[in-house]
Amino acid sequence: MACKSVAIQGELGSFSHAAARELLGEGVEILSQTTFEESFDAVLSGRADVALVPIENSLAGSIHENYDRMRERPLHIVAETQIRVEQCLISRPGASLASLRRVASHPVALAQCRRFFAEHPGLEPVPVYDTAGSVRDLLRDGPATQAAIASRLAASLYGGSILLEGIEDDPENYTRFLLLSREKGDVAAGTKTSLVVTLRNVPGALHAALGAFARRRIDLAKIESRPLRGRPWEYAFYLDVLGDPAGDAAAALVELEGYAEEVRILGQYPEAVKRFGVAAALPGAAS
Amino acid sequence: MACKSVAIQGELGSFSHAAARELLGEGVEILSQTTFEESFDAVLSGRADVALVPIENSLAGSIHENYDRMRERPLHIVAETQIRVEQCLISRPGASLASLRRVASHPVALAQCRRFFAEHPGLEPVPVYDTAGSVRDLLRDGPATQAAIASRLAASLYGGSILLEGIEDDPENYTRFLLLSREKGDVAAGTKTSLVVTLRNVPGALHAALGAFARRRIDLAKIESRPLRGRPWEYAFYLDVLGDPAGDAAAALVELEGYAEEVRILGQYPEAVKRFGVAAALPGAAS
Repeated sequence: MACKSVAIQGELGSFSHAAARELLGEGVEILSQTTFEESFDAVLSGRADVALVPIENSLAGSIHENYDRMRERPLHIVAETQIRVEQCLISRPGASLASLRRVASHPVALAQCRRFFAEHPGLEPVPVYDTAGSVRDLLRDGPATQAAIASRLAASLYGGSILLEGIEDDPENYTRFLLLSREKGDVAAGTKTSLVVTLRNVPGALHAALGAFARRRIDLAKIESRPLRGRPWEYAFYLDVLGDPAGDAAAALVELEGYAEEVRILGQYPEAVKRFGVAAALPGAAS
Repeated sequence: MACKSVAIQGELGSFSHAAARELLGEGVEILSQTTFEESFDAVLSGRADVALVPIENSLAGSIHENYDRMRERPLHIVAETQIRVEQCLISRPGASLASLRRVASHPVALAQCRRFFAEHPGLEPVPVYDTAGSVRDLLRDGPATQAAIASRLAASLYGGSILLEGIEDDPENYTRFLLLSREKGDVAAGTKTSLVVTLRNVPGALHAALGAFARRRIDLAKIESRPLRGRPWEYAFYLDVLGDPAGDAAAALVELEGYAEEVRILGQYPEAVKRFGVAAALPGAAS
């Protein structure tokens, strides 16, 4: 896959940017977009080769609007990656923690650092529109008594000083991203298949559908449900399954067609997101 | 259940208020709360007998934060209800559509009426914090050239005139609510069981868990997954199953315990939400 440019949501230095560097290296042009919608559109229109969109955070859960967009748009998942969301306290060079009065960041990042603010009651949290943008603005013309909360990458890009690292309350904070392309990826290299299915509306349909995988000992890594527009209280199911796309997983998908109104493969790609914690200790860990 | 007061999120005249009237009648005291969190707390602390919280919208999907709260707090679901979200254009008495310049409402309500605004390009949408609050403020001291978008109930409570009804883009717009109490409901009257389960982390665990219900021909009305804090990429599953809580459903729950790390019954209550559209034409309709 020739990939020269990637659309991301957020400013340069955002966690999406950090994830793009991790997955694609530093040589790829980053096309910063204001919204997720624009990231999808950038690929569809050909302005970007690929888009990297967050799909799930280990604390906050799925980013459901991006699940909906994947169903509605003819893009293919060609890779996944994850990054640990490690929040840094970033100041202008020369400032010290004792000299700070205000700390700006996106409301979600501020909320992830409640303990830090409780331990530093003299610091006033200031909500702004973007984590990386709070660093850029601070370094451009912010006061020396102000800091920002953002990624290490944002500090490095904009020339900020990292006063503290890992100030988030919960270090088990990961975001998983999907790389989307107009063309399919290398299916032979795929070990994970993402699909969306709408089932025939009969009792036990979901159980039967999952059975196509379970009987073949194929792991289900994720299930997500989303409403079907115009059909209240009916759902589309998004499944991530592991296994050889040319072998057992392929046979399971053929069986699944029998239970489904519609099955669409969203992508077959190498599984790259490792599982942590309790699950990692068990063989074949998946829920 | 002696129920004299109900906590809801939102102002009097909100869709939650309309749902509370539908379910509990007009004699119950409405305790208006600013946040969902406060609605849960009002019941836990005894300030309210029950809370009525939205759990799912047929267009936007689940309200995941309320799923999380149900798992974290020792409340019981004792009833469910749904209302159709029908948006009305509400003005001060005597105003006409032609005299209007601005229309205030919550951003979600404004977004649900895109077609109306496209057809009336002279009307400027004005985002405010609450649908019913936009009517209250308009009738208190708003200009005659301004209108609000909210429920029929809000118009009636605050003395507004309904200029147009059903201005939402998609009439298949329903919100389902759960009634939460400190005590269990009348289990004998229950036909729907809501539960949350964390499964042993082995391949096929979800399939096996659903099999406990499918083999007994017990319908699964809903499945929702949410992240487990401290265990990245592992999930709690919320299931709504139909059936006799003293018969087949009880046996299925016993079997489910065998696959689960933890099962918690969130409530057993009468199924009150009918299904519409394609599903309604089929016997035993469920996904």
